[in-house]
Amino acid sequence: MAASASIPKTVYLGTFVHCVSLSDLEISEKGAIGVDENGVIQFVEKNVDLAQVHEKHSDWKEAKVTELKGNSFFFPGFIDTHTHAPQHPNTGLFGKTTLLSWLETYTFPTESSFSSLEKASPIYTNFVSRTLSHGTTTCAYYATIHVPATNLLADICLSRGQRALVGRVCMNSHSMSPDYYRDATLESALADSKASIDYIHSIDPQGDIVRPIVTPRFAPSCTAECLSALGDLAKSHDAFIQTHISENLGEIELVKELFPKSESYTAVYDETNLLTEKTILAHAIHLDQKERETIKARGAKISHCPASNTALTSGCAPIREYLDMGLTIGLGTDVSGGFSPSILEECRQAIWTSRFRAMGNGDDVKLSTQEALYLATRGGAKVVGLEGKVGGFEVGMEWDAQMICLGEVAEGGEKEGVFESGPVDVWGWESMEDRVNKWVYSGDDRNCVAVWVRGRLVHKTAKFQG
Amino acid sequence: MAASASIPKTVYLGTFVHCVSLSDLEISEKGAIGVDENGVIQFVEKNVDLAQVHEKHSDWKEAKVTELKGNSFFFPGFIDTHTHAPQHPNTGLFGKTTLLSWLETYTFPTESSFSSLEKASPIYTNFVSRTLSHGTTTCAYYATIHVPATNLLADICLSRGQRALVGRVCMNSHSMSPDYYRDATLESALADSKASIDYIHSIDPQGDIVRPIVTPRFAPSCTAECLSALGDLAKSHDAFIQTHISENLGEIELVKELFPKSESYTAVYDETNLLTEKTILAHAIHLDQKERETIKARGAKISHCPASNTALTSGCAPIREYLDMGLTIGLGTDVSGGFSPSILEECRQAIWTSRFRAMGNGDDVKLSTQEALYLATRGGAKVVGLEGKVGGFEVGMEWDAQMICLGEVAEGGEKEGVFESGPVDVWGWESMEDRVNKWVYSGDDRNCVAVWVRGRLVHKTAKFQG
Repeated sequence: MAASASIPKTVYLGTFVHCVSLSDLEISEKGAIGVDENGVIQFVEKNVDLAQVHEKHSDWKEAKVTELKGNSFFFPGFIDTHTHAPQHPNTGLFGKTTLLSWLETYTFPTESSFSSLEKASPIYTNFVSRTLSHGTTTCAYYATIHVPATNLLADICLSRGQRALVGRVCMNSHSMSPDYYRDATLESALADSKASIDYIHSIDPQGDIVRPIVTPRFAPSCTAECLSALGDLAKSHDAFIQTHISENLGEIELVKELFPKSESYTAVYDETNLLTEKTILAHAIHLDQKERETIKARGAKISHCPASNTALTSGCAPIREYLDMGLTIGLGTDVSGGFSPSILEECRQAIWTSRFRAMGNGDDVKLSTQEALYLATRGGAKVVGLEGKVGGFEVGMEWDAQMICLGEVAEGGEKEGVFESGPVDVWGWESMEDRVNKWVYSGDDRNCVAVWVRGRLVHKTAKFQG
Repeated sequence: MAASASIPKTVYLGTFVHCVSLSDLEISEKGAIGVDENGVIQFVEKNVDLAQVHEKHSDWKEAKVTELKGNSFFFPGFIDTHTHAPQHPNTGLFGKTTLLSWLETYTFPTESSFSSLEKASPIYTNFVSRTLSHGTTTCAYYATIHVPATNLLADICLSRGQRALVGRVCMNSHSMSPDYYRDATLESALADSKASIDYIHSIDPQGDIVRPIVTPRFAPSCTAECLSALGDLAKSHDAFIQTHISENLGEIELVKELFPKSESYTAVYDETNLLTEKTILAHAIHLDQKERETIKARGAKISHCPASNTALTSGCAPIREYLDMGLTIGLGTDVSGGFSPSILEECRQAIWTSRFRAMGNGDDVKLSTQEALYLATRGGAKVVGLEGKVGGFEVGMEWDAQMICLGEVAEGGEKEGVFESGPVDVWGWESMEDRVNKWVYSGDDRNCVAVWVRGRLVHKTAKFQG
């Protein structure tokens, strides 16, 4: 199986950048990281050259060496804690719609077509390639209600070597599930969700690369019985859960109408055993104080999706307040409510959203570059249950990494407009911290020249010389 | 002189997209545009093939033909109504600063180094290449206080064939002009501004490509005498004027302190004859009703710079209100307060900013894709005095255009992650309007494969086969 094929013991040499805490970025300009045949980091050295590495680690003299050239650095792979793979072809199509009208206009018609594997296959193939090309090494995917297409998405992730949580979407209610795209019965919904969980366990029993995730679309699309049954299903399989919460004011009103006995949107999930330490709640924009506290008490996690929240005019999630109270937060691209498969773009959007909140609430709520990068890596790792395994460069963690190459400005300035190095202009005088900032604010997939998951090279561009 | 070299009479064949009004985008899928040796559009035909063009315009049978291939369309060149060329190397560097601290930390030190032409040359060369590569055919540039470097920027624009307004920055006051970077005296300031105006007139007497622009940095950097003298200078040369207004609350307070007799920030400029029909006011975020009316009465124009306003947490300009009262508005990248030289990115940012305003003020204030594109082309043309000349495709207008190539998704979906077509995924079923939306929300410079100004090809990538 490709995903578990052994990889050559490798020493990665050059500049390493990663987050060591929410506010601190560590930059090691002359670093060396030894990654073994299982993709596990065996040593991390700072301020060394190869001779010193070999002296200190004599059993690594025969190891492969991958050394950075030019203005490059290694950065942990990005973690996308919320996205919808079947909505990929609708990227950029939302017009002036908001959540509920957007679902009916764009999303449900597209998702319903995934009854055909022929339709699903190129879209899932392309989307996994897209997210990998942006440095996303772990991704929490919503699929559709269809078991075969959901299983295909898991197959593709496993084959490409991208860590993934793959969820068959469950939606059985008449309120926000259209006639042409709805689980036929509660029984069939549960059977289908279970079938997809079983399939994903069968292809990756340890869940090293792909894992199933129980996926009630959101409360308005599921009956209370269905939500409860999914809570039980997740419990019996010790599985992750993902759903949406408190994205849009109209949606919140709808939940009140549909679940009149529940005190809040959060209570609906809490009462159906869907709020666990393995639950990923996307959006979480308009939560009241009690809801926030319930989520914290249950240990559920939040996926912040600012690009989507802006594009659909959903609102600005109060991330600083959540961080201050100790909630666990990662970033999600939420394609195609979000308009980009890139977590780097999502970092920028998280920063912009925090600035919009700052305009009325003071500078303290602004997210820094470092904080956004933390949410994109360490924060995301906590959200998807991979804390201590990915998201940073430490002994015992696995080598999920991207090689970022910034290139440099041509001698005398580019005269013809052919910017072979990509979108970032590095002049030579910039500190490493400046370079990281330039990457965050003007970089894109052209700067992501190679990507590894568990030590396996899963993406590279022509610029990568491994 | 390169800029006025004649170009071959050419028929451009394929899909044309342009704005015909603030809310209407016209898409002609089988169009033909005839551009003569002077770069002027002589005919615009819809629903035709080449044979029909030759039949109707028999004197164009020998003309060169540039035909679109694949998922491509012609779009008017973008107009950047406000940017700072010397700040290009600081792109992405702002941290958590706001306007006044950002000026002192990043901007003034960099700009002051442009006393050296050796420093200025590669930066200006590179930046003009960057803006052209993003499809910017006209740009209103701030330079620095230095005459030789300012003139060099004008030389580069003329040589590359990019329409430009180039302004020597004037700043003589002790308040917001540091000791190391300030016009020495009022007299030297005026003499230097005049010297640069005269130089720019000498290299392009008709102002077909480059024109000078009187550029008081902003009220806090100039004495009242200086502002008045610059108002007179602009009047005597019938010149354009550019400056900043009402960007940041601290700045507005500072203007109140420095100009206690003036009723408002706008009044400071009005009282010094700087508010004219040829004045470009950047930002204009926090104007009160009377200021808005004064600006309208004087016919002054507004450059909306949302990327910068978000990055520096300046605020969200009320663009819908300005449009409703009939103010003239274009978009500005405001590098390096803004983090991108791309007007396409600025379109997105204008849309996001309008959504943040919508969150508190209702959906009516949202800008549509069409409206953002209008501001980027026709709106910008009005701001820089080129209405009726550029910004759309009409007989008598000049051929300032970009060829946008979207490419298409590989058969079966991209399997290796090598996205040769660039960032936009076109599947084949999309309407032209969908394709334009995909370009606006996920496109970048990779999609801009050729750029013309007055019929002259001023930028191309390897993908262009002209």
